[in-house]
Amino acid sequence: MMPLILEIWYLAPITSIISIIAGIFLYNYVNSKDSGTEKMKNIARAIQEGSRSFLKTEYTYLAVFVSIMAILLSIFLSVKIGITYIFGTLTSGLAGLIGMEIAVKANVRTANAAKEGGLTNAFPIAFRGGAVMGLMVVGLALLGVSIIYLITGDPELVLGMSIGASTLTLFMKAGGGIFTKTADIAADLVGKVELNIPEDDPRNPAVIADNVGDNVGDCAGSGADLFDSYVAALMAAMILGGASGITYLETLPLIYAGLGIVSSIIGVATVRVGKKGDPGRALNMGTYITTISFSILTFLITRFLGFDMKIWYSNIAGLLAGLVIGMTSDYFTSINRPPALRTAESSQTGAAVNILTGFSYGLISCFPALLGIAVGSAVAYFLYGVYGVGIAAVGMLAIAGIIIAGDAYGPIGDNAKGIAEMAELGEDIVNITDEIDAAGNTTKAITKGFAIGAAGLTALALLASYQEIVNTLTGTIVTFDLMNPLVMVGVLVGMAVPIVFSAMIILAVSSNASRMIEEVRRQFREIPGLLEGAAEPDYAACVMIATRGALRELLPLIIFSISTTLLLGFIAGIQALAGFLAGAIFSGFFLAILMANAGGLWDNAKKYIESGFYGGKGSEGHKAAVIGDTVGDPFKDTAGPSLNTLVTVISQIASLFAPLIIVYALITI
Amino acid sequence: MMPLILEIWYLAPITSIISIIAGIFLYNYVNSKDSGTEKMKNIARAIQEGSRSFLKTEYTYLAVFVSIMAILLSIFLSVKIGITYIFGTLTSGLAGLIGMEIAVKANVRTANAAKEGGLTNAFPIAFRGGAVMGLMVVGLALLGVSIIYLITGDPELVLGMSIGASTLTLFMKAGGGIFTKTADIAADLVGKVELNIPEDDPRNPAVIADNVGDNVGDCAGSGADLFDSYVAALMAAMILGGASGITYLETLPLIYAGLGIVSSIIGVATVRVGKKGDPGRALNMGTYITTISFSILTFLITRFLGFDMKIWYSNIAGLLAGLVIGMTSDYFTSINRPPALRTAESSQTGAAVNILTGFSYGLISCFPALLGIAVGSAVAYFLYGVYGVGIAAVGMLAIAGIIIAGDAYGPIGDNAKGIAEMAELGEDIVNITDEIDAAGNTTKAITKGFAIGAAGLTALALLASYQEIVNTLTGTIVTFDLMNPLVMVGVLVGMAVPIVFSAMIILAVSSNASRMIEEVRRQFREIPGLLEGAAEPDYAACVMIATRGALRELLPLIIFSISTTLLLGFIAGIQALAGFLAGAIFSGFFLAILMANAGGLWDNAKKYIESGFYGGKGSEGHKAAVIGDTVGDPFKDTAGPSLNTLVTVISQIASLFAPLIIVYALITI
Repeated sequence: MMPLILEIWYLAPITSIISIIAGIFLYNYVNSKDSGTEKMKNIARAIQEGSRSFLKTEYTYLAVFVSIMAILLSIFLSVKIGITYIFGTLTSGLAGLIGMEIAVKANVRTANAAKEGGLTNAFPIAFRGGAVMGLMVVGLALLGVSIIYLITGDPELVLGMSIGASTLTLFMKAGGGIFTKTADIAADLVGKVELNIPEDDPRNPAVIADNVGDNVGDCAGSGADLFDSYVAALMAAMILGGASGITYLETLPLIYAGLGIVSSIIGVATVRVGKKGDPGRALNMGTYITTISFSILTFLITRFLGFDMKIWYSNIAGLLAGLVIGMTSDYFTSINRPPALRTAESSQTGAAVNILTGFSYGLISCFPALLGIAVGSAVAYFLYGVYGVGIAAVGMLAIAGIIIAGDAYGPIGDNAKGIAEMAELGEDIVNITDEIDAAGNTTKAITKGFAIGAAGLTALALLASYQEIVNTLTGTIVTFDLMNPLVMVGVLVGMAVPIVFSAMIILAVSSNASRMIEEVRRQFREIPGLLEGAAEPDYAACVMIATRGALRELLPLIIFSISTTLLLGFIAGIQALAGFLAGAIFSGFFLAILMANAGGLWDNAKKYIESGFYGGKGSEGHKAAVIGDTVGDPFKDTAGPSLNTLVTVISQIASLFAPLIIVYALITI
Repeated sequence: MMPLILEIWYLAPITSIISIIAGIFLYNYVNSKDSGTEKMKNIARAIQEGSRSFLKTEYTYLAVFVSIMAILLSIFLSVKIGITYIFGTLTSGLAGLIGMEIAVKANVRTANAAKEGGLTNAFPIAFRGGAVMGLMVVGLALLGVSIIYLITGDPELVLGMSIGASTLTLFMKAGGGIFTKTADIAADLVGKVELNIPEDDPRNPAVIADNVGDNVGDCAGSGADLFDSYVAALMAAMILGGASGITYLETLPLIYAGLGIVSSIIGVATVRVGKKGDPGRALNMGTYITTISFSILTFLITRFLGFDMKIWYSNIAGLLAGLVIGMTSDYFTSINRPPALRTAESSQTGAAVNILTGFSYGLISCFPALLGIAVGSAVAYFLYGVYGVGIAAVGMLAIAGIIIAGDAYGPIGDNAKGIAEMAELGEDIVNITDEIDAAGNTTKAITKGFAIGAAGLTALALLASYQEIVNTLTGTIVTFDLMNPLVMVGVLVGMAVPIVFSAMIILAVSSNASRMIEEVRRQFREIPGLLEGAAEPDYAACVMIATRGALRELLPLIIFSISTTLLLGFIAGIQALAGFLAGAIFSGFFLAILMANAGGLWDNAKKYIESGFYGGKGSEGHKAAVIGDTVGDPFKDTAGPSLNTLVTVISQIASLFAPLIIVYALITI
């Protein structure tokens, strides 16, 4: 049976190529649709140009950063790692580029389809736009991993690719996160608060930057995030499998990933909304169908090939943990559940109580999430050791195709609504786009929880693969005893990294926003006739400020994270570094959940009041809820989502530098 | 030399009796002073009655709770533990009672002395009032430990006393914390915001409860907090010393503690403020003199008795770690340092930005604190193993006498100012009491950091003593490997306990505050002439609501913490429970630092604006800063300070139940 088993992993490159072809097919479908009136085209063009200008500037910075990193890696480690590193940034960068290109085309076409044929016509465009991103991300990721493995046969070289993808993701998530909130805060503060003009008003110079922000932060950023976790989980499981001595365990993660792609394609194909259909339900059905198909397919192949069925159970443990975390996020952020309702109610006593209540529920929401990850990883471990944990992470991430599709659908719907408003398509059309947008919000909470859970499991698998690498290098079995003071020092310092990172990125948003506020005020002051609608604002100037500022603020963050990891490793050695990784996972996971859920909760508490309760829009309670929502914005859209990637990056840096740290660290106990 | 060494620990009971006598002496000194006009006496009486009524109700609840706990401990563990448990609650309760009694006497006498003889006369009364608390706490604590050790010779029975003290502290800190913020929020919201009457106005029915809150939360609570850490650190170090096999290590912590008392008495005796003196400087001088005396005395005795000098160095490592954490808190909360200044500046852009900025600096402040604890404990460990960590904690806590004196001085000054305002003693007198109050605020930040640092080190020592107990019970050397999935499950679930506890206690404040707001509104509505000053409000009703509510909200918190610990232990076993304790230390320490520093920062950012910057009082920036301050209030005065105790309680519960868990846990790997 061995030959069959060894060849069966070709399923991975084959399905990944199918995924890319399916993505191109859907791209052409979306692109073939009409993009509406001249006015709509103009607005869409401004968003496209803004998004492209951001990506271009970001990729320019990245090219420099990646080149330096690749040279350093080639010198200190090996040229092979330098090359796979570049390969990782290229594949991930390409996936982000394609996803963003289709998003900025799908938005206006969705708005136009809503105008022409209502929800039934508009929904497929928005969803298939998102699906392009989903299929491209998993296709390119799995193809990339397969190519490296095909050529080198060495899963540790996948680490080079994985860290390349992670560096890029850190730029996309954190940079995009700073960008989007900079634009959001500046647009709201000068437009809504100072000048009293509506949201998404074309007179506001920051309005295009705000829409661009949705694409660069939510769309390209989220895609990159899951690309990164996907590759990292595959790599970790392959390394753990390779170390087990059982040949088929090394390639099994690739087989599962291939089946995940097949399931995602099935899921994407079945998503449709009937004449009176509910888009939220359609999206969820797609996820359910994918999950069930994936469970069945992996069951069959595991059984058919005679693999240990415990591996399949580990896989399911991962899926269930993801489900628990996603459901928790859903409960704690939904507009019709006690946490959001009580936060809305508390707004009547003022902003401080609104913030305290939302923050408290955010804290409580960490309990089920921590428990879910704890139990999921422990069950997987008892089933099949550290490899079980790796497979649990792969199990969660294998269905990333459909998850990303649902996630990328969100900003397309959001943008479509913005375009419908700016192009004055009338209330009926705006309502249809609103329905599309709202469905995106329900799935968003679940996918966000899913992404954090997947990253948490992946981080645990990365910690295990770090241990495996250290074991191989030292030729002994290394334990990381909590009572070892070096491990304890590592944990305490490691905890500080996500904590300080969150703080720095929030401060970055506020300092970048104040630069942009100045620019928006300047334009209203210096461009005659702007407020009256007689002149055009300079949208590009705002996009440029948000872009440059985001990237400028980003660099210290990235240098801080990488240098703290290396400093601790080279001073305190490999034991301390293991503690450091664990500490970063602990505080990173906690803060990621807290910030995502508290942010979502404040957002929906505000929306609940806006729907007419506790005084409705304009009441004192509403003002209080708006303050809570503004606090939550950088929590949920900037700091929170970057933490996953941060933890992945430092875990991989640690694994990559382990050989040098073992030899050169000051403390070598 | 052995006989001398064995007898020298009698220093502990002797110095503790001296400390109690000195406390009684100072009590009489303060009590002999005049308490001023009839009006002042009336106000003071209302505060005294409110404080006594709170303590009485709390002690009634406690009596029931303690009896049940003592019976359960006697049945499941041993009658000896049941008895030492009760003994612990009694000594700690007595210290709290005396400290509070003197605080409510010293406040009015300080105000009157300011009227009669200015700062030079008023300061010693406030300080010596605080010193009564300080000397009583350390005296009773050390005497209690000495008595148990003298009778039984078994440091593990000190664990019973220690957990008794901790339970009581949890009631005092968390219950007092809910009480004080309930009253504060209700008094401010109805008084200042709705009715526009000044702070500390006698027409406000909640004003007495607010002043009572300062005593029960800050004064009795802080004293109990350090009592608890003090006994826990001694107990942990004694257990670790006993397990080392070197006889003198078991009693050395008692000797150091005795020398700490001598040093504190020296420090208290030298605190005085000259004619033009600065009370803040006088307080700091007292701390410095105590620290230096303690270092010299311990050096001499360690050298003279021929003990290993590495023990002394461990002791100093603890002191230095405490210093770093205290200085960090000082830097991040001081009114004239960048964090508070930038938060004040950011208030101009609105409440949301104020909160984001303050929260971010609070996060950053965790870095030096985590590093300080990490390096301090690691250095102590490398000097003298786990016993070194225990001695580092003892070293920090030995000088608790002077620390508590400075801490309890705070609410006395605060109350004196309130009384001076309510009794209309005129601007000059209010200014003197204000100066006394302000000096309390500077030392408060440092002592708060110190208390958290001491609790952090103590928690690490408790974890080590837990391991020691498990080693003894199982007869093997147990390691807590981070890669053991049970340990990892324990860490993740353990982290959740302080997180959920913080959330529950913050929600408790807001639900209790809304009950009290109703009552204050009712009184203004139903008592004719109250707003005009023609009728007296019903102060006692407000005190009763705050008391009952605080205790009612407290019970679920305590049950949650204890039951989670036991559940995890009995389900997942001793390995998981070790991880659980570590996890609780990780998140508890992080949240305690974050909440204390962010809270202090917001408070001072508001004060900075009130001193005339960025528009001063009443400006938009000021309103924003007030919202930040209100968010910070339950952070720094309710949730933050309770976390130390929470971690201590669950660590001790774990040690106490270790014998049962080893035998009866479901998972026994």
